[in-house]
Amino acid sequence: MRFETSGRNGYARTGKLTLAHGIVETPAFMPVGTNGAVKMCGHECVKDAGAQIVLSNAFHLYLKPGLDVLREFGGIHNFASWDIPILTDSGGFQIFSLSKNMRVDDEGVDFKSPFDGAVHRFTPEKVMEIQEAIGSDIAMVLDECLAPGNDLESTKKSVKRTTQWANRALESHKRKDQNLFGIIQGGFFEDLRRKSAIEITSMPFDGFGIGGLSVGEDIDTTIKMLDAVLPLMPEDKPKYLMGVGDPVLMLEAIERGVDMMDCVLPTRMGRHGGIFTSMGRINIRASVYEKDPSGLDPECDCKVCQTYSRGYIHHLIKRGESTGMIFATYHNIYFLTNLMKQSRDAIMKGEFDEFKKFVIGKINDKKR
Amino acid sequence: MRFETSGRNGYARTGKLTLAHGIVETPAFMPVGTNGAVKMCGHECVKDAGAQIVLSNAFHLYLKPGLDVLREFGGIHNFASWDIPILTDSGGFQIFSLSKNMRVDDEGVDFKSPFDGAVHRFTPEKVMEIQEAIGSDIAMVLDECLAPGNDLESTKKSVKRTTQWANRALESHKRKDQNLFGIIQGGFFEDLRRKSAIEITSMPFDGFGIGGLSVGEDIDTTIKMLDAVLPLMPEDKPKYLMGVGDPVLMLEAIERGVDMMDCVLPTRMGRHGGIFTSMGRINIRASVYEKDPSGLDPECDCKVCQTYSRGYIHHLIKRGESTGMIFATYHNIYFLTNLMKQSRDAIMKGEFDEFKKFVIGKINDKKR
Repeated sequence: MRFETSGRNGYARTGKLTLAHGIVETPAFMPVGTNGAVKMCGHECVKDAGAQIVLSNAFHLYLKPGLDVLREFGGIHNFASWDIPILTDSGGFQIFSLSKNMRVDDEGVDFKSPFDGAVHRFTPEKVMEIQEAIGSDIAMVLDECLAPGNDLESTKKSVKRTTQWANRALESHKRKDQNLFGIIQGGFFEDLRRKSAIEITSMPFDGFGIGGLSVGEDIDTTIKMLDAVLPLMPEDKPKYLMGVGDPVLMLEAIERGVDMMDCVLPTRMGRHGGIFTSMGRINIRASVYEKDPSGLDPECDCKVCQTYSRGYIHHLIKRGESTGMIFATYHNIYFLTNLMKQSRDAIMKGEFDEFKKFVIGKINDKKR
Repeated sequence: MRFETSGRNGYARTGKLTLAHGIVETPAFMPVGTNGAVKMCGHECVKDAGAQIVLSNAFHLYLKPGLDVLREFGGIHNFASWDIPILTDSGGFQIFSLSKNMRVDDEGVDFKSPFDGAVHRFTPEKVMEIQEAIGSDIAMVLDECLAPGNDLESTKKSVKRTTQWANRALESHKRKDQNLFGIIQGGFFEDLRRKSAIEITSMPFDGFGIGGLSVGEDIDTTIKMLDAVLPLMPEDKPKYLMGVGDPVLMLEAIERGVDMMDCVLPTRMGRHGGIFTSMGRINIRASVYEKDPSGLDPECDCKVCQTYSRGYIHHLIKRGESTGMIFATYHNIYFLTNLMKQSRDAIMKGEFDEFKKFVIGKINDKKR
């Protein structure tokens, strides 16, 4: 991996990440393709909507189709015939949020498969083995994701465990053509966030994720945690804020130096009629859009907004027509990748602060 | 409308249908976009998969979005931003098959909306008004579709009524830029089919549909009914077999002079993993395809078959991933439009008989 930063505007920066399957311009948004495909958006659609990298999930791919099938096909890129940079999340978040009867100790974590209830064990080493079989361009270490609301003591223990696991992941990771990112945790305690950042970034990872945020806390808390860790992170490596796809928070993160983000928001929202617009989110199912001839976002230049009316997509999504969901998903992904592109342009021009204020101003105008 | 036949091979023929929104080469397959969109296939996808005309439904569009919205947008082409020839079925079939508490008399038919139970009345005149508001390139008359298994007496009455309704439709139809097709009924009685064909084709329609077939009867019965009516239909107008999308029956129909067909089969099957192949239908969910590296149909040159493996699409559809359904739908539509293209080529070369035998032979080989 090569990561070169170019423009810089305050802490905000543009860069270029060169991976085995392509180049990613940063700041970058990664649409989520949990099971090896983005919902309601084929591979051409993903590329066409401006995404240069997608996120898939080691936890899900390990369960289905399973390592056996992935190895048979020689990894996710061949299996999915998908020639695009792919980052895999380790599945830590999924185990801790989706699994019932999950049991964690210093060695690893036991969890039950949501498919058949069979017990599986993930260790930092096992998760490396899985991601090496998947062959993603970027692998993430197994981290312990506490539920929000944990106290100082348990969060402290979890930070310690996450550091130990990060060390073990590094030691067991073998594939030289795959990049490995560490993950900073620490709940909502600034001191623990700083401790985790110092420990994790002292290890020779290729980049660093910030995990456990945007899990229900308010935006001021998220920003406080970002302000605690980002200044401690090395400048020569990508900074990846995990699970964030809200435009306002994305701009706040970019301003503070974040390079990469991912989120299910654009795709999940799109399937239910939630639409990003430059005037804030709307739900296209609302009856006010029944006869609206304008595009989903009148200021958007994506091909869906240039072609279809709100009235038509309102009709389709109200009728449960999947093609309406396809249109909404495309626009939502485009909206975020375009926001990243506009951010990169603004950073290059040294105008990121004005750009951010302008975009957030319009969104907040609508809310009033 | 201009309809010019070109090649001819026995009764099979190729032709060109010139409509307000484009040219349709016949024999043609029309994918179904009931609510003004083809499920799991955006407009680009439909065109790319080779369709030159789609079918939408007056019954569904009348209920939602309703004539009010359609008139506001100036018809379906503007509403759906869809610059493709569109044929609308009258909704007769839907009223008789979907509606509870439907009540028919010589004047028209009362039915309850599946949305809110409100009673609506369709008459031949009302259905013309609806389709004129929709602005489809081809409108279909309201016909009475009996359920299979009706006796001679009730079928006789229904043929009489269908003829009377056809007359009324013709008289009330005003839009000169819209073509109107009559529909031949007659259940599974050859005499009644012939009677209906003679009566309907004596009226100055722009083309003729054959309705009430492929509703559960065996293929020999369908063919017997086709053999009863097709020789009575005028050669200078399109012959449209309604609701047929089975490759074998399509070839039998083309051999007998059919020019147009439509069916939900490729799209509905695709969403559940049913795949057309040159060796017959398969269900991609079957575990035998888990590690299969070949395309859905190894002999198909569509972009899905050229790009993705059975193993990958097996995984996606088993996981309920919509993108797998998008891939399967695309292939299935392509398979039928390509079968039409190959049929046209074979007719032009005077080799339709051999082509048909070859295709059906391969499908039947697999069944053994």
